[in-house]
Amino acid sequence: MTNTELTLRLKETAGAVEEALADVLGSVHTGTTAVAEAMRYSTLGGGKRIRAFLVLEFARLFGASREAAMPFACALECVHAYSLIHDDLPCMDNDPLRRGKPSCHIAFGEAEALLAGDALLTYAFEAAASNDRVSPKSAALAVKTLAAEAGPRGMVGGQTLDMKSEMKDWDELYAMIDGKTAALIRAACLLGYYAATDEPDPETVKRITAYADGIGIAFQIRDDILDVISDTATLGKEAGSDAKNDKKTVLAFMSMEEAERREKELTASACEAVAGFEGSETLRDLALWLSERMK
Amino acid sequence: MTNTELTLRLKETAGAVEEALADVLGSVHTGTTAVAEAMRYSTLGGGKRIRAFLVLEFARLFGASREAAMPFACALECVHAYSLIHDDLPCMDNDPLRRGKPSCHIAFGEAEALLAGDALLTYAFEAAASNDRVSPKSAALAVKTLAAEAGPRGMVGGQTLDMKSEMKDWDELYAMIDGKTAALIRAACLLGYYAATDEPDPETVKRITAYADGIGIAFQIRDDILDVISDTATLGKEAGSDAKNDKKTVLAFMSMEEAERREKELTASACEAVAGFEGSETLRDLALWLSERMK
Repeated sequence: MTNTELTLRLKETAGAVEEALADVLGSVHTGTTAVAEAMRYSTLGGGKRIRAFLVLEFARLFGASREAAMPFACALECVHAYSLIHDDLPCMDNDPLRRGKPSCHIAFGEAEALLAGDALLTYAFEAAASNDRVSPKSAALAVKTLAAEAGPRGMVGGQTLDMKSEMKDWDELYAMIDGKTAALIRAACLLGYYAATDEPDPETVKRITAYADGIGIAFQIRDDILDVISDTATLGKEAGSDAKNDKKTVLAFMSMEEAERREKELTASACEAVAGFEGSETLRDLALWLSERMK
Repeated sequence: MTNTELTLRLKETAGAVEEALADVLGSVHTGTTAVAEAMRYSTLGGGKRIRAFLVLEFARLFGASREAAMPFACALECVHAYSLIHDDLPCMDNDPLRRGKPSCHIAFGEAEALLAGDALLTYAFEAAASNDRVSPKSAALAVKTLAAEAGPRGMVGGQTLDMKSEMKDWDELYAMIDGKTAALIRAACLLGYYAATDEPDPETVKRITAYADGIGIAFQIRDDILDVISDTATLGKEAGSDAKNDKKTVLAFMSMEEAERREKELTASACEAVAGFEGSETLRDLALWLSERMK
């Protein structure tokens, strides 16, 4: 698949996911309208939808329909959106901007942002558990996996590591990236598989996890590299902001060459992990595309 | 059952729940220890555990073992604990005290409290979905119900109503109480039933919901009454604090006599709703005990 074909595919999928999310979030009513609006503001209209794409692509690979996988894809995007809202709050990163727009708490207020995040996280599990195009066993497996990867041992665990004043070594930074970035990628890939089966094969789970870990860690390394080598116009956010904001980046522990070498190695191991699955070329192409992206 | 017998039963159950919670939360590790400690600090060692009691009691009523219902009981208590942590945050009620101890964000910091709440909410769904003593269908049903009652149409919805500067009438206040207090009580009662069956009977669900609504709303009315008639020593928190803090209470819309009349009516309707279930005397006695409590 050429990069153009992959980009079109990503775009088409993002459109379908956007539609499904707009559909479910459009019917959300909270006591007042502000929190429901804040939920939509932070979930709709943006992002590459990589996590949803992974859910749908793994579902396709193992024979599930897009309809069966879509509630899981929406759940992933809701969890991702909640994590960004809470991450931007004053007591966390205190970030007034997100994707070039005012952050949720700037646009709606801090209490509203807190509750919108809480509501999105909660709603994600309702969406996953209510998926009636898969067996209840698949639905329960999806909730369990999503919660484990998003929770204290997963994404929240990564956040707590990020709050430490400094990282003592690459292993600790790796653990942070594993939680903050790779955990949800793992959940996305596995939930796609669980849309297709409720009797997961342990060897297949291992390979899917290896793919997810490879692209998840590589994604963050590439992000850190881009912050240094790219320019603000291309990135769509201020280049060089990691160093300015004293963020914990991979480049604190290795040279640019070493970072690039590791990133390529991780991408190659991800491709290798799924090479045995018939029809996995898109996943390979996605890994390569992410690895070479300029923003 | 006498009040003494019921109190002993509540105490015994609270002990068992405490043990189960300590067990699961004891093994929680987050990247740093502060968030895991904050989770335990806010979940263990306190409260009447009414929600967990309702899960276990409805499970018993419909023939499920305590072991089968315990993960659901723990899930309810985790969601309850998360809601209190986020509720106390500076951007919400800004409350420095909870059950006579420093609130979570005072004891551990605001970011840690935010993440501890997020982690508890997420973990609740992992616990419910991982319950392997019930069928996957029961587990999925439990997650769906808990998420619906805790989410934007339930508890979070109640919170957003609480943020309005004023309530226009009793109906609006009722909607707030329904979300903030009754929603989790409903989830507790239903999850107990779902521990016993994965083919819920609609008529039974209706009766259980009526019981939960009755004691849930009555509980809040009694709370508002106690704030006026009780003294600080008995309450364990400052009496009269609702008026002082300009809280939205039932007594803003009706006289004390009217509030007491409604509270008794709701309690009676709760007792009536479960009267037809064999062995439901404990639930009746619980409703009456809650209605007459002095703190």
